Amino acid sequence: MEDERFERGSARLREIDGSAGAEVIAGLADIAPDLGRYVVEFAFGDVYSGPELSLREREIATIAALTALGSAHPQLVVHIEAGLRVGLSREEVIAIITQMAVYAGFPAALNGVSAAREAFAAHDARAGDAGG
Amino acid sequence: MEDERFERGSARLREIDGSAGAEVIAGLADIAPDLGRYVVEFAFGDVYSGPELSLREREIATIAALTALGSAHPQLVVHIEAGLRVGLSREEVIAIITQMAVYAGFPAALNGVSAAREAFAAHDARAGDAGG
Amino acid sequence: MEDERFERGSARLREIDGSAGAEVIAGLADIAPDLGRYVVEFAFGDVYSGPELSLREREIATIAALTALGSAHPQLVVHIEAGLRVGLSREEVIAIITQMAVYAGFPAALNGVSAAREAFAAHDARAGDAGG
Amino acid sequence: MEDERFERGSARLREIDGSAGAEVIAGLADIAPDLGRYVVEFAFGDVYSGPELSLREREIATIAALTALGSAHPQLVVHIEAGLRVGLSREEVIAIITQMAVYAGFPAALNGVSAAREAFAAHDARAGDAGG
Amino acid sequence: MEDERFERGSARLREIDGSAGAEVIAGLADIAPDLGRYVVEFAFGDVYSGPELSLREREIATIAALTALGSAHPQLVVHIEAGLRVGLSREEVIAIITQMAVYAGFPAALNGVSAAREAFAAHDARAGDAGG
Amino acid sequence: MEDERFERGSARLREIDGSAGAEVIAGLADIAPDLGRYVVEFAFGDVYSGPELSLREREIATIAALTALGSAHPQLVVHIEAGLRVGLSREEVIAIITQMAVYAGFPAALNGVSAAREAFAAHDARAGDAGG
Repeated sequence: MEDERFERGSARLREIDGSAGAEVIAGLADIAPDLGRYVVEFAFGDVYSGPELSLREREIATIAALTALGSAHPQLVVHIEAGLRVGLSREEVIAIITQMAVYAGFPAALNGVSAAREAFAAHDARAGDAGG
Repeated sequence: MEDERFERGSARLREIDGSAGAEVIAGLADIAPDLGRYVVEFAFGDVYSGPELSLREREIATIAALTALGSAHPQLVVHIEAGLRVGLSREEVIAIITQMAVYAGFPAALNGVSAAREAFAAHDARAGDAGG
Repeated sequence: MEDERFERGSARLREIDGSAGAEVIAGLADIAPDLGRYVVEFAFGDVYSGPELSLREREIATIAALTALGSAHPQLVVHIEAGLRVGLSREEVIAIITQMAVYAGFPAALNGVSAAREAFAAHDARAGDAGG
Repeated sequence: MEDERFERGSARLREIDGSAGAEVIAGLADIAPDLGRYVVEFAFGDVYSGPELSLREREIATIAALTALGSAHPQLVVHIEAGLRVGLSREEVIAIITQMAVYAGFPAALNGVSAAREAFAAHDARAGDAGG
Repeated sequence: MEDERFERGSARLREIDGSAGAEVIAGLADIAPDLGRYVVEFAFGDVYSGPELSLREREIATIAALTALGSAHPQLVVHIEAGLRVGLSREEVIAIITQMAVYAGFPAALNGVSAAREAFAAHDARAGDAGG
Repeated sequence: MEDERFERGSARLREIDGSAGAEVIAGLADIAPDLGRYVVEFAFGDVYSGPELSLREREIATIAALTALGSAHPQLVVHIEAGLRVGLSREEVIAIITQMAVYAGFPAALNGVSAAREAFAAHDARAGDAGG
């Protein structure tokens, strides 16, 4: 049944992050394999597999939280790309980040916009690759 | 036009928070009136009046962020009640808070559940008042 | 095998927290049962069941982190009691908390001492009950 | 020379906090005496004894930082009272706290105003005692 | 009257940040124009235009808060340069940052010094440009 | 007696950090000499010289706290190297960081692993130098 959680989490991660998620997990294999396994099993196999919220709504929550926390730049970039993949527009992403100025201050929002700029460029690059 | 922002913000605040929002602002009048005015004009008149996201989506973002930050208990209680008012179910609120265990740790999520418990009780009390 | 994780986590939680841990989980049953299950399965069944560190070392890490974060007072009280249970002396607990003044500032350390005061009193009360 | 640092710190603490500071230190004597000593020797004997900034300026910095951090409510109350003592007006204290809405978000500023309300009341009570 | 706030904010921003502030706002135009507008109108047109504190005192508060938060490096660099512009000496800036070791820990203060080093170099470079 | 604290702190710093600690202090001499002195005298001469905990236990606490805080990357790298020096294995370091996923979320743990990767490489490089 652990295998079932891992399979379910891997599928969810692929749906949300495409190949980027798998790369993060692979990058942990030589140094922190348990942590990589927990990301797949717990974060994606358990939490993100719950039926209460759509993936679009889950990414709204995650982009908001990571922008507010302000100390998770690489993860915020990954989740903004994920947000675009599951149906958020760029304007919606920017509106979520802008709203965080109210709750976590302008520096958090401004640094969130920097993450969005990176994520939008990466998204364009992947689209270019796919289209080329 | 400042008056227009204040009016727009007051209406938005009432729509989201009912009378609770106005009470917060009134409570600031004797000690920090500018801050109260900024909440109405900037947070609600500017940010929450943007057309990009629904109020339901804005409350998903805010509940997520305040749970993750972990240092905004009174505001989290208010926004969970606001979430219920603009269409989130209790199960959805709990799912957002639970998801924050992934991004901000279990203590943040557990304290978020305590805030939800308070907000659900306040919501029931108001419903009782309204119905009584 | 999920049941195995839950059983392993429950046993670990009891070993660390005595009855206090089970009470926290029971308190989540009516409002956030998934979160309660994740605490048992993931935090205690997975992470705390790893063989790399002793329970004493794990509680040093947790007391340090919760003191530094500064926004997890109830969880810090629980883990200080847990630390005493798995072999830390009161002087060692205070030394960990005092060290956090260096990394997270004096307010975090001072509030950590307040949590320790609560935990030491609760520990004494339980010892009194057991001895009475 | 340690004694000299302790004496210098004690004098500085009394100048800034009146009797409230000494009470905090006394309250640590039975549980965390080293931490209490470090507050006096390091925070007040070393840092606050530097000639670069006036006490008024140091309290502007501290009130701003503790409001922004959002997890140091008791210390913020003490330092707002200290600010009044070293020459800040209530309007200036509120302006510092309000400014933090820009850098740490509105919840931090709103909770800072709650701390100010407590500190202003304590200040009034002491003035009443002194005058009575 | 919105235009008036924007004009007032732009003037205040120029007074504090010189051309650096305008560059930040211009950099937001293509991706997050509302956020850029809010910085000018709300942060500088409203908050920084309040009469209660001098600009020098406002920068003491902001440098302290951003150092303590520890997750706003680019903004801290900008505000240290602003502090020099509105009358803080380098020794005063370093004293503010050093004081934050007491409230937010030594890592926050050490990273604040790194930001100061960058800001001082940028200030020297601008002075060299102006003098050349 | 100040000199005694400085000497004791310098010795402790060398024992924990090797030459890396002294380099950090030397790097502060031209810009923030008081802060550098406080690191030696207070952090290492006072706190780390306390007899209650072993250096190995102190580094468990520090690595946990800095991972959880998430805004102290350079200091976390230094302390992971210090941990290896005072007897932690790489597996133990990774287990401490992984445990922080429970208390501060997965982004904090993932960024902690990045710091560990840097620290392990630096440790290997020094070993290579020493052996060459």
